[in-house]
Amino acid sequence: MSVYTTMRTVRFSHCDPAGIIYYPRYFDLIHEAKEDWFRYALKYPFAQMFGERRNGFPIAHVEADFTGPSRLGEDLTIALTIEKIGASALHLHYAVACAGEPRMEARTVIVHVELDTGRPVRIDDDLRERLERFRDGPG
Amino acid sequence: MSVYTTMRTVRFSHCDPAGIIYYPRYFDLIHEAKEDWFRYALKYPFAQMFGERRNGFPIAHVEADFTGPSRLGEDLTIALTIEKIGASALHLHYAVACAGEPRMEARTVIVHVELDTGRPVRIDDDLRERLERFRDGPG
Amino acid sequence: MSVYTTMRTVRFSHCDPAGIIYYPRYFDLIHEAKEDWFRYALKYPFAQMFGERRNGFPIAHVEADFTGPSRLGEDLTIALTIEKIGASALHLHYAVACAGEPRMEARTVIVHVELDTGRPVRIDDDLRERLERFRDGPG
Amino acid sequence: MSVYTTMRTVRFSHCDPAGIIYYPRYFDLIHEAKEDWFRYALKYPFAQMFGERRNGFPIAHVEADFTGPSRLGEDLTIALTIEKIGASALHLHYAVACAGEPRMEARTVIVHVELDTGRPVRIDDDLRERLERFRDGPG
Repeated sequence: MSVYTTMRTVRFSHCDPAGIIYYPRYFDLIHEAKEDWFRYALKYPFAQMFGERRNGFPIAHVEADFTGPSRLGEDLTIALTIEKIGASALHLHYAVACAGEPRMEARTVIVHVELDTGRPVRIDDDLRERLERFRDGPG
Repeated sequence: MSVYTTMRTVRFSHCDPAGIIYYPRYFDLIHEAKEDWFRYALKYPFAQMFGERRNGFPIAHVEADFTGPSRLGEDLTIALTIEKIGASALHLHYAVACAGEPRMEARTVIVHVELDTGRPVRIDDDLRERLERFRDGPG
Repeated sequence: MSVYTTMRTVRFSHCDPAGIIYYPRYFDLIHEAKEDWFRYALKYPFAQMFGERRNGFPIAHVEADFTGPSRLGEDLTIALTIEKIGASALHLHYAVACAGEPRMEARTVIVHVELDTGRPVRIDDDLRERLERFRDGPG
Repeated sequence: MSVYTTMRTVRFSHCDPAGIIYYPRYFDLIHEAKEDWFRYALKYPFAQMFGERRNGFPIAHVEADFTGPSRLGEDLTIALTIEKIGASALHLHYAVACAGEPRMEARTVIVHVELDTGRPVRIDDDLRERLERFRDGPG
């Protein structure tokens, strides 16, 4: 199973008065990991998806566990894997860690839609093939 | 069962290139609802919790379903209820709607900690009483 | 000269590890004040400007002075005034204070554009009249 | 004169319903550039400044010009230079561009303070020397 891994630093803007990440910012970080994955691994940048194709991938469901605080200046690894490729839904898993220590784990379900109607639309063959190739690849 | 209800407008800063709320901003909105609830319903503002008492309530778990897009300028109601008061954990439920139409529903588990050690600490009797009074109150 | 005044609470999400507002969040706050002013005072909501009219008001210039820290839970007043109504440019002034104590002051120049081309376009007579009526009004 | 240059991608979370950067996010980006500069060029990470030394560098003044829209997925370069090293104030300049095309230029004045009192405090000799070495360096 392939894993797409990227790194993010805990920024001043992410931290709360307790000096740790304010939890909604974790969702910004995993969203950025997904953007990079689409761009660099799937070769299908969000700018193209939104601009030319007029498709999007809004979220339908998320669940997350937070297992330890992340502090200003720490470098986090975010590991993204595909859990399931449905007709229009895509199930992704994220594991966020710092130097091997788990910090946050999330599962999301995102749904392929037409931007102009907001209606779910089947993941087309080209994108499906790229997703399957990633999922089944050597990593 | 008591419900604490507050309103929030979908702001320019919440919206993405599709003109709808970028989902991490929903967590900002329900966090603000919780801040208002602590301040106005429980009479225990976050500033006091963090500043004087040196306690916090970081998140341990969240799950959320997104049932419809929210657009720039819409006025959302956020309804907060208590699902469970544990030893140090507090289980909250949020229902976000626009003119009665459900948009997002979330369950969170937050844990009472000492800020300086990060260790879970029992919800003290004074706060526990306020939480129970809210939960059992007329709304 | 008319002043449009609105209030905003310093939120957990606005604060940095020093427990004070992280300065870019002030620009979120004054943007929200401008959104409210367009909606409630000028009766021309941003949702209508962007959606139906396909116009926008991107920023061309900003300058700001920060005169004191704002802390978690403080209630800030934001006072907006018009400094100049140009052909397509609008010069606004914002004064942010807490209980009369100045915290931040900003001047911005925003420019009326067509969204689809990004080109500056004259502020039309209807909007101009509303702006002038506000500027010259009793407050 | 030395220039510290870093790159940032325009993220989904930065963009507004017009598909361009919502301007307060530029200040997040230049703040991140400053954090990287302190960490990698000055070898004085913010985490150390805030945590061990209990010093900070809040903003006193900012002015910025926005010369062109930045769009989802674009890669921006941020070039930071020192304009002046005062007793406790530090004057920085930022130039943000995309493929050589200027997008935003900012000048900021930040002030060295003791975190616990908020009072301005002289930039100590060790930091001053690092700043001067950077300013006078080969770039």
